[in-house]
Amino acid sequence: KAKRPYLRAPDVQRTAYLPDLFPIHEKFAKRHIGPDDESIQQMISELSPPASSMDEFVRHVIPSDILSDRKLFQDKSCSKSGSEGFQEVEVQRLYNTLGKMNYQTRASLYGGGYYGTHTPEVIKRNVLENPGWYTSYTPYQPEISQGRLESLLNFQTMVSDLTGLPISNASLLDEGTAAAEAMTMSLNTLPASRANRPRKTYVVSKDIHTRTLDVLRGRAEGFGIDILPADLNSDYQSVLDSVGDDLVGVMVQYPDTRGRVHDYRELADAVHKKGVLLSAATDLLALTLLTPPGEWGADIAFGNSQRFGVPLGFGGPHAAFFAVKDKYKRKMPGRLIGVSKDRLGNRALRLSLQTREQHIRREKATSNVCTAQALLANMSAMYAIYHGPEGLKKIAERTHLAARVIQAGARRYDLDTGSEDVAFDTVTIQCPGRSKIVQRLAFGHGVGVRVLDDDTVALSTDEVVDEGSLLRVLQTFSEIKTGSKTKSLQIDHVSTLKELLEQESKKSGIPESLHRKSPYLTHPVFNSHHSETEMLRYIHHLQSKDLSLVHSMIPLGSCTMKLNGSTEMALVTSDGFANFHPFAPITTVSGWKALRKMLMAQLADITGMQGCSIQPNSGAQGEFAGLHAIRKFHQSNGDNKRDICLIPVSAHGTNPASAAMAGMRVVPIKCDTKTGNLDIADLEAKCAQYSEQIGCIMITYPSTFGVFEPEIKKVCEIVHSHGGQVYMDGANMNAQIGLCSPGEIGADVCHLNLHKTFCIPHGGGGPGVGPICVKEHLNPFLPEIFPVSSAEFGSASILPISWAYNLLMGGDGLKKATEVTLLNANYIMSKLKPHYSILYTNRHGRCAHEFILDARPFHDSAGIEAIDIAKRLQDYGFHAPTMSWPVANTLMIEPTESESKEELDRFIDALISIRQEIREIEEGKAPRQGNVLKMAPHPMVDIINGDGEAGAKWDRPYSREKAVYPLPWLKEKKFWPTVARVDDTYGDLNLFCTCPPVEDTTGGNLSSVQEA
Amino acid sequence: KAKRPYLRAPDVQRTAYLPDLFPIHEKFAKRHIGPDDESIQQMISELSPPASSMDEFVRHVIPSDILSDRKLFQDKSCSKSGSEGFQEVEVQRLYNTLGKMNYQTRASLYGGGYYGTHTPEVIKRNVLENPGWYTSYTPYQPEISQGRLESLLNFQTMVSDLTGLPISNASLLDEGTAAAEAMTMSLNTLPASRANRPRKTYVVSKDIHTRTLDVLRGRAEGFGIDILPADLNSDYQSVLDSVGDDLVGVMVQYPDTRGRVHDYRELADAVHKKGVLLSAATDLLALTLLTPPGEWGADIAFGNSQRFGVPLGFGGPHAAFFAVKDKYKRKMPGRLIGVSKDRLGNRALRLSLQTREQHIRREKATSNVCTAQALLANMSAMYAIYHGPEGLKKIAERTHLAARVIQAGARRYDLDTGSEDVAFDTVTIQCPGRSKIVQRLAFGHGVGVRVLDDDTVALSTDEVVDEGSLLRVLQTFSEIKTGSKTKSLQIDHVSTLKELLEQESKKSGIPESLHRKSPYLTHPVFNSHHSETEMLRYIHHLQSKDLSLVHSMIPLGSCTMKLNGSTEMALVTSDGFANFHPFAPITTVSGWKALRKMLMAQLADITGMQGCSIQPNSGAQGEFAGLHAIRKFHQSNGDNKRDICLIPVSAHGTNPASAAMAGMRVVPIKCDTKTGNLDIADLEAKCAQYSEQIGCIMITYPSTFGVFEPEIKKVCEIVHSHGGQVYMDGANMNAQIGLCSPGEIGADVCHLNLHKTFCIPHGGGGPGVGPICVKEHLNPFLPEIFPVSSAEFGSASILPISWAYNLLMGGDGLKKATEVTLLNANYIMSKLKPHYSILYTNRHGRCAHEFILDARPFHDSAGIEAIDIAKRLQDYGFHAPTMSWPVANTLMIEPTESESKEELDRFIDALISIRQEIREIEEGKAPRQGNVLKMAPHPMVDIINGDGEAGAKWDRPYSREKAVYPLPWLKEKKFWPTVARVDDTYGDLNLFCTCPPVEDTTGGNLSSVQEA
Repeated sequence: KAKRPYLRAPDVQRTAYLPDLFPIHEKFAKRHIGPDDESIQQMISELSPPASSMDEFVRHVIPSDILSDRKLFQDKSCSKSGSEGFQEVEVQRLYNTLGKMNYQTRASLYGGGYYGTHTPEVIKRNVLENPGWYTSYTPYQPEISQGRLESLLNFQTMVSDLTGLPISNASLLDEGTAAAEAMTMSLNTLPASRANRPRKTYVVSKDIHTRTLDVLRGRAEGFGIDILPADLNSDYQSVLDSVGDDLVGVMVQYPDTRGRVHDYRELADAVHKKGVLLSAATDLLALTLLTPPGEWGADIAFGNSQRFGVPLGFGGPHAAFFAVKDKYKRKMPGRLIGVSKDRLGNRALRLSLQTREQHIRREKATSNVCTAQALLANMSAMYAIYHGPEGLKKIAERTHLAARVIQAGARRYDLDTGSEDVAFDTVTIQCPGRSKIVQRLAFGHGVGVRVLDDDTVALSTDEVVDEGSLLRVLQTFSEIKTGSKTKSLQIDHVSTLKELLEQESKKSGIPESLHRKSPYLTHPVFNSHHSETEMLRYIHHLQSKDLSLVHSMIPLGSCTMKLNGSTEMALVTSDGFANFHPFAPITTVSGWKALRKMLMAQLADITGMQGCSIQPNSGAQGEFAGLHAIRKFHQSNGDNKRDICLIPVSAHGTNPASAAMAGMRVVPIKCDTKTGNLDIADLEAKCAQYSEQIGCIMITYPSTFGVFEPEIKKVCEIVHSHGGQVYMDGANMNAQIGLCSPGEIGADVCHLNLHKTFCIPHGGGGPGVGPICVKEHLNPFLPEIFPVSSAEFGSASILPISWAYNLLMGGDGLKKATEVTLLNANYIMSKLKPHYSILYTNRHGRCAHEFILDARPFHDSAGIEAIDIAKRLQDYGFHAPTMSWPVANTLMIEPTESESKEELDRFIDALISIRQEIREIEEGKAPRQGNVLKMAPHPMVDIINGDGEAGAKWDRPYSREKAVYPLPWLKEKKFWPTVARVDDTYGDLNLFCTCPPVEDTTGGNLSSVQEA
Repeated sequence: KAKRPYLRAPDVQRTAYLPDLFPIHEKFAKRHIGPDDESIQQMISELSPPASSMDEFVRHVIPSDILSDRKLFQDKSCSKSGSEGFQEVEVQRLYNTLGKMNYQTRASLYGGGYYGTHTPEVIKRNVLENPGWYTSYTPYQPEISQGRLESLLNFQTMVSDLTGLPISNASLLDEGTAAAEAMTMSLNTLPASRANRPRKTYVVSKDIHTRTLDVLRGRAEGFGIDILPADLNSDYQSVLDSVGDDLVGVMVQYPDTRGRVHDYRELADAVHKKGVLLSAATDLLALTLLTPPGEWGADIAFGNSQRFGVPLGFGGPHAAFFAVKDKYKRKMPGRLIGVSKDRLGNRALRLSLQTREQHIRREKATSNVCTAQALLANMSAMYAIYHGPEGLKKIAERTHLAARVIQAGARRYDLDTGSEDVAFDTVTIQCPGRSKIVQRLAFGHGVGVRVLDDDTVALSTDEVVDEGSLLRVLQTFSEIKTGSKTKSLQIDHVSTLKELLEQESKKSGIPESLHRKSPYLTHPVFNSHHSETEMLRYIHHLQSKDLSLVHSMIPLGSCTMKLNGSTEMALVTSDGFANFHPFAPITTVSGWKALRKMLMAQLADITGMQGCSIQPNSGAQGEFAGLHAIRKFHQSNGDNKRDICLIPVSAHGTNPASAAMAGMRVVPIKCDTKTGNLDIADLEAKCAQYSEQIGCIMITYPSTFGVFEPEIKKVCEIVHSHGGQVYMDGANMNAQIGLCSPGEIGADVCHLNLHKTFCIPHGGGGPGVGPICVKEHLNPFLPEIFPVSSAEFGSASILPISWAYNLLMGGDGLKKATEVTLLNANYIMSKLKPHYSILYTNRHGRCAHEFILDARPFHDSAGIEAIDIAKRLQDYGFHAPTMSWPVANTLMIEPTESESKEELDRFIDALISIRQEIREIEEGKAPRQGNVLKMAPHPMVDIINGDGEAGAKWDRPYSREKAVYPLPWLKEKKFWPTVARVDDTYGDLNLFCTCPPVEDTTGGNLSSVQEA
């Protein structure tokens, strides 16, 4: 049932508001944009080279042939207030109105990978609604990220314990993409002779979630893999034999989508005999009762951790988990938190295997995972900590009991639930030819059930099932049987329920052979924080270790760490939207539908495109979806051979990886080493060379070097002239909005990072949303037809953030934000130019929204590297800019529009002060080793030690004061790194990825960890 | 219209839930109570003297003659689940159901001291919904409270600037009680000859808010003052002359309750000529446009700061403000934040005039202010910071414009709004005999209007008025005129509105002579944080300075700093309850009514009483209300002479102050110096001496010494036998719930502190709620008939916290909490006994829920005082216990039930470690001066200094490590005080109570402040 994405006016006419006759005194844009008008004028006046006005400045930055005077949001489908922004209260009111268009069932028993859960309020308030947690960046700077690193390590430990597999990563995007990663990982473990076979086949149990299968299919295509759904419960041997050496791997689901569990021990042996990996989609809650996959032979286990305390959110974001056997740890996709040590020998956590494929293999990479679901993984880990192993087991048992009661109830009404007892949480009911009718009937009783096929519905129980939901289920069954509707609660249903509960509480449907025997979550962290006070303090203690936007600017080049407005964020957890199941019939969630349509219209308008999909859960997923659409487009024109993707050497590592995943061959295009611009001659040469095979060019704009390349239009024309499409990476879209647009420049597809440009917080490493916008001709190839995510609406529950941002800013506000983001970057650059060399600017001497500061000269002059500057910035209370990317030993600085002039000045002062510290080395006043930069950052313990009774004396060539208070305002506002510089090499050599033994948790040295 | 408080079943039958057939795996009580069952057993086994079981232990603690086996909540009006607790989700569901019974008008134009306001979401989320702000205690320990002290200083500066009076306090409870304080302060400035005149009269403008007048009347009674309402706008001179020397003072309202402003310059002169003070009730928003009271001669200005960003909350809590001329600063009630310096000479803030009357004058005190509204004051200050002076002025101008439009609109429909132009925000309409009909009619259009009298309604505009509300007002007017209802928006109303807006935007109704000329909010703090990012960081920066329950236990004796559960707290800001105006007709807020009834039933049941009032905004207000009821009861029996209040010498300072305010004479009763118990012989002697005059005894139970006195029943009997009533101070109620009760013991009245015992957070110094519970015979004398607060429901918006707590815990949970709170205290005491001497225990060697640790021996042995231990505890990351109260140079420790055994052990270890540090002094290993205790606390700057290039060397007799990391876990979890020990004497001598000049804000030394 493919649907066309569409951009007509949304169905919110009934929310009509009045003309803005009587506006409040200020628009949200004033709150979002850091510098006020006075500061803006002052900053313009201090630019170097000078500019006389904002307009002139913008013309210096952006090539005149792409500068657009199109006003945004002139179409009512984007925002009824057009270029004017909404007031905050208007957005809240509109949201509430839309929320009322979503009909919430009393019990959402759809299951299929998503389950009702209670988010403990202490976790909701102190993690999900807390900017101290949600505004932090991916923990690339471990010294100021130990809090969320510890939490993610808890997540890994939880997953590892429950799956029975020793190595777990720190989350993936969703269950479907995790399945796809399992498949490609299986491929990667094969010898080349098998991996390169033309008819490679991946065998998947037919009882896997439908949507997982869809996502697998999309991903398999690029790798030339056939997906073979099969019945693996009975005669798996003949299936395996029939595939023979084409076998890439096997995947089962446990419990499967129909709720059954099977003993896969023999299957595992058979699969291993074929020399391939067995992957198991599974369910963490079920694994508290079931023998874990690691114990029956699975090589990979994965699934969705949503039911551990993360709201349904109409499908996402949730943290998928992924665990493997030890021998495959270096093949595992995604990020892994590892235990290492710091300069002082104390325990320190770090990202140990961070998307290493892309770093090392680039165009050979088979995974483009970048953004993960850190915030949601943290919530799930906190949920496990709060409940502990016993609490989780009780929740699982109660869930199972509810399912037993439902099955027994169904049988009492003579419904066919099959002969087997329900194994965990899912009961299927046979209703030949009537499944949709039954679904509608159940809906009338406030019960959501899943349609498995025309003849079958399924009901899945969960943590939130209560007497009320069970009674409604019984009423539904009664109506199915009798055909007559009983609206009010009937007293005999109550007594039936009571009887069934008593009867069923004595039994279990889990086969004896699959009862879990092994302990789990034995680490003290899962057994110490069961009171709310302890939980609260643990959450805040971890938070206190992490630097986030509540402290200071995070000037990460290419990551756009702007304000995540409270009004935007409050929508995520407000009633009316948060607790919908993604399988709720679309006619019952008109509010969601309308909101998505409006957001898609906004994004298409901003990018100058005609179509949009918000399904991809990350920028990298967007890349994949966009390239996939291009491939499909060419194929639809019979151009099957157009499989070359031209990628500049300066591109982000996800670009070539995504191209490979979409089945494209990567051909790199050189860049001019002096200007950083694309080498047009090389482009023309490559185009000429491969003309008939060119699928597309993939280009970031402004470039990853932070400059608006002057010849971008020409680049598009060249590629188009050879029949190729233009894919624009939207990572730097914050520099374009309202001033120019990919569509007008000539792109056919672009993705956006809502978590960069459109205010979705980084969440300490996710969630993200990576919509793609396309020209009209690509509309038929969007993910709505070729799914890339498990949930149709992707990470639905965070879409309101971007939707609200667009409404609040209005077209004018968005444009001004872009102007200020350009100004902020050029202002910092102007101030730093006398002190540092800047790598690339355009012919007017301007950067775009970011610029690269060159640290390479200091290597010879002072023995100082970019990393030393980055670590020293921590002592000044700042997060480092992007380090050594896209050029080694440089720092890429992006301030965003949300930072005030005062904050920029503090940052400038810090960098100038660091330059002075470097100069002291250059001038011989400070030594080349052991100086204040090399020893940075300085945690408390480093300062306090040194004259303890047992410790050594303070013997540095600089004072404590210089280490800690290099600028005077630090005395008022100091952020302490909690560990000294982390030893990356040690961590790489000694992978240790679950919670270390407890003796070590107070920061003792690492010896005990090594032995563990 | 007096109403009888009643305790019948609440109107929530429609929310009936099902029997708890299928409970979730655990109750909330498990989350609320710190120690789990295993820990509880272990703690019992480690008690000294030993106990074999919880039951035996409880029998050791509580006298057998009062121990009750009554189960709580057996009456359905308290909680339908009886002794079982509700699940968290059930409470949320019930709350939502009740919320739907409240009908929200589109525009609440009732005014009268409460106005619609937008709480900026960044403030709501990061202050009001942030446990880092709301769980902190009153800032008595300034070194770990600089954040909220700075915020309260901002509040004072804001109030001082806007009122034009140099000294402002850090908030009072509400406008009515602030008026009462103004009156008593006026009385206190009179010479004794006038203050003691029998027919003292306080003249109040008849155009003051009705409710203010009611509260004034109640308070005036105790002081023997007559209230004379008078028209002060025309012939004030004759009014003043007629009162003559009986005049106590004069009070006006500006703008007045009918919205008019008058030039009071001449009145002020006339009042001053009479030798008394002129007080002005006023409105901070209006003062951005109007000449401030301080400039036209008012001595005192006060009012409600609610409209600065604090939700209406159905009447409270909000912060009242109170500002005076410099010469009256030492007469001012409430708390004052002052600028002082610390040991290092750096700027440090502190509470400088904290409820000093009660400390110094005790029974002569005329104000019992203790709890203030710190959290709400902080919100208002943050609101002013976010908007800045210009933003506030624009809001005021827009509010005024809306009022002008309403007035012009009314005139267009031939309604009589008087001849004067509206002066600020309030329009009155004459509708002879029809005001209630008009109110109902307006309600039908979604507009709330205030009934001033039978012939007049008033409409007050505010920040949230928008096109929609104005159109509804026009529709209302149209219906009043034509008599026909126009339901849908009419296009001609839109054009009328447009026209009126244009026409009125050119004018102002403020008389030229009263236009504000003077600047306000010029301090940089009000001009630097206008972007959301800056605001967010400022809020979090201040938060980072303050220790709160998110860090560690706050073991404050008599203050019960227990968990403020997230589920309870989330109700406060959830939809359905938060934004109701207290003047909304009671029939439209059935949800509020039902919730209050349930809460009153719960509290009456818990205290063993039959009546309840939740109106008092603080414990001290409760005391006043309770004593007032006793007075009225005696008077109703013709016992006018029963005006003696017996108070033990150990009583809290508010007790005698409240008695004085209720017009009672205080007679102190001695306590046994050895046991701390009330001296029964002295009680009998005093009773015999004053028999016919005894109004009541006022007694705290368990006593302020932390012991259940064995003869409490006898005490009650003695007093009753002399015809007196028994008032029980409920400060220590946490030790009684479910085990015994004031009613069963023999008390006639008791107050409760919902902010201690029932989980309302302390908010850094307020809000609080102090309900009183009474025996049946006192029901007719409750505040519902004799108001003590401006709002009928008191601090309504925080009542759901206590309501939810009672439901969640259920009777069984509450009882268990009490057992554990007793156990926790006795466990700490058992562990500390070998190291410290404990002041009082009962004959079984047990304390109640708190105990007193004696520091007096260290004075001689080591030169150490309680304050040194308190300050040293900060270095260990703990807030000090209550210091030197009720016995000088002691520490009173109350752990509450929410603290886990692990946390108690940490605290015990800290105190044992400190004892060891004292021993080092005693043994001569450390000096008596300059040791680690005397120099405590140690802020960062103290540690870093000492080897700076310009600084002195570290010359302490102890190492930095000993100063900062005296116990190993501090390396993992360190909380830094932000200043060194604050110099109290300096601060007292140099009162400086508004934001200091900006040069000083980064912690420079104080010289510039002194000169300012």
